[in-house]
Amino acid sequence: MRVALGIEYDGASFCGWQSQPSLCGVQDVLEQAIKAIALLDVRVHAAGRTDTGVHALMQVVHFDTEANRPERAWVRGVNANLPNTVRVIWSKFVVNDFHARFSATGRDYEYLLVNAAVAPAILSNKAGWYHLPLDVSAMQEGLQYLRGEHDFSAFQASECQAKTAIKTIRDANIEVCGNKLVFKFAANAFLQHQVRNMIGALIYVGNGKQKPSSIKTLLANKDRTQSPPTFSPNGLYLTQVHYDEKWMLPNCQRQLDMI
Amino acid sequence: MRVALGIEYDGASFCGWQSQPSLCGVQDVLEQAIKAIALLDVRVHAAGRTDTGVHALMQVVHFDTEANRPERAWVRGVNANLPNTVRVIWSKFVVNDFHARFSATGRDYEYLLVNAAVAPAILSNKAGWYHLPLDVSAMQEGLQYLRGEHDFSAFQASECQAKTAIKTIRDANIEVCGNKLVFKFAANAFLQHQVRNMIGALIYVGNGKQKPSSIKTLLANKDRTQSPPTFSPNGLYLTQVHYDEKWMLPNCQRQLDMI
Repeated sequence: MRVALGIEYDGASFCGWQSQPSLCGVQDVLEQAIKAIALLDVRVHAAGRTDTGVHALMQVVHFDTEANRPERAWVRGVNANLPNTVRVIWSKFVVNDFHARFSATGRDYEYLLVNAAVAPAILSNKAGWYHLPLDVSAMQEGLQYLRGEHDFSAFQASECQAKTAIKTIRDANIEVCGNKLVFKFAANAFLQHQVRNMIGALIYVGNGKQKPSSIKTLLANKDRTQSPPTFSPNGLYLTQVHYDEKWMLPNCQRQLDMI
Repeated sequence: MRVALGIEYDGASFCGWQSQPSLCGVQDVLEQAIKAIALLDVRVHAAGRTDTGVHALMQVVHFDTEANRPERAWVRGVNANLPNTVRVIWSKFVVNDFHARFSATGRDYEYLLVNAAVAPAILSNKAGWYHLPLDVSAMQEGLQYLRGEHDFSAFQASECQAKTAIKTIRDANIEVCGNKLVFKFAANAFLQHQVRNMIGALIYVGNGKQKPSSIKTLLANKDRTQSPPTFSPNGLYLTQVHYDEKWMLPNCQRQLDMI
């Protein structure tokens, strides 16, 4: 039996999604909690392998098990065995063709940036922070160059193992609410550190160190070493995973305004 | 020289405001950080002594020092010596008549409650949580009995040392945004656990265990043992301290919608 789960987690409490020998990954605690219900080892596969400090409002995972439990047990039972920084939102029995990662047709991320003289304390590990005033209209202008299909080598982590740096950003926006900026990115897939590197480059546009057109130049030169530094993981949230309707999954979208 | 500070802190990282032998209080880390700038011991006085787990978007404190530093040093310098879960928002030199606690004419608290089947993971220690549907209009009706001057003995912690249980609630409201409820209370002062006890009683109205008029009965009977249980500290935020304009303090109000 294949089971899909929609989950939320606080990335500040873990060393990233992926399982680690020290068991500090979200995957580690989730597999342990599922095992407590299945009474058998399981291996969980996720739509997106988030880095250390990166949060998920909606991560989608699947696992196979021979344990016969009612659908709701994979929510209530697993939650009873998870730390309170990880929660299963929903569970769904799926056919064996479904794969949380390979069936996904898109991922959306949002980035929460506090733009204020003093860093946030309550959201210290839930938001990025920049202390100088930012020119949002210049950042909006820079953002437009990121939309569409591009070779994103300039924004790819050096250790990234993706087969290709060519990805399609379907939509990109910045919403402003007081001194908070929310960056929204929708793409078929993202390279490692891509969003954090794009945020870093947009900050350099916003603070006037670079012109909006610098984003176009970075993309054209495909050279990571020319790009501004990678920005903090603290403000990054996986918010949606896209799948074909045929899988009949529950809602796979949650937005940052809910926190 | 007397210095006032406006500060923000994440209550989940501390055992409450007050200094403790184990140095786990917000007061402890703040006094240590100020000492690093003043090079002299200081004693800090706060407008409200928040409990373990309770947050402050705006706490006001003062201290006396013979150290002669520019006003901004009490922001930047102190912040450089604080953990990132506490931040000084502003500093202001004040006359010796000013006292953060005794000059305060009112305190406002907000309570963030997530009303959803599954508990929040990302906000696990930043919000209260209730799993069953709540009748908000019944809660609004119950809330009206809390407005005005009352003997709040029914909502007073047994260990509370206040001289009188008679307090005035100037305003009380509930705002709803999706599955989040924000309770707002403005009063001259609050008893220990008063807001959490009022939230507990309002939850019993919202889930139908009690009628809205039960709030009136609880107030009349003045008996804590008849009241519903104290609710979680996780969703409680000190958001504003009121002072006379003559003290010329910077803005002492911040709202929960900023997080």
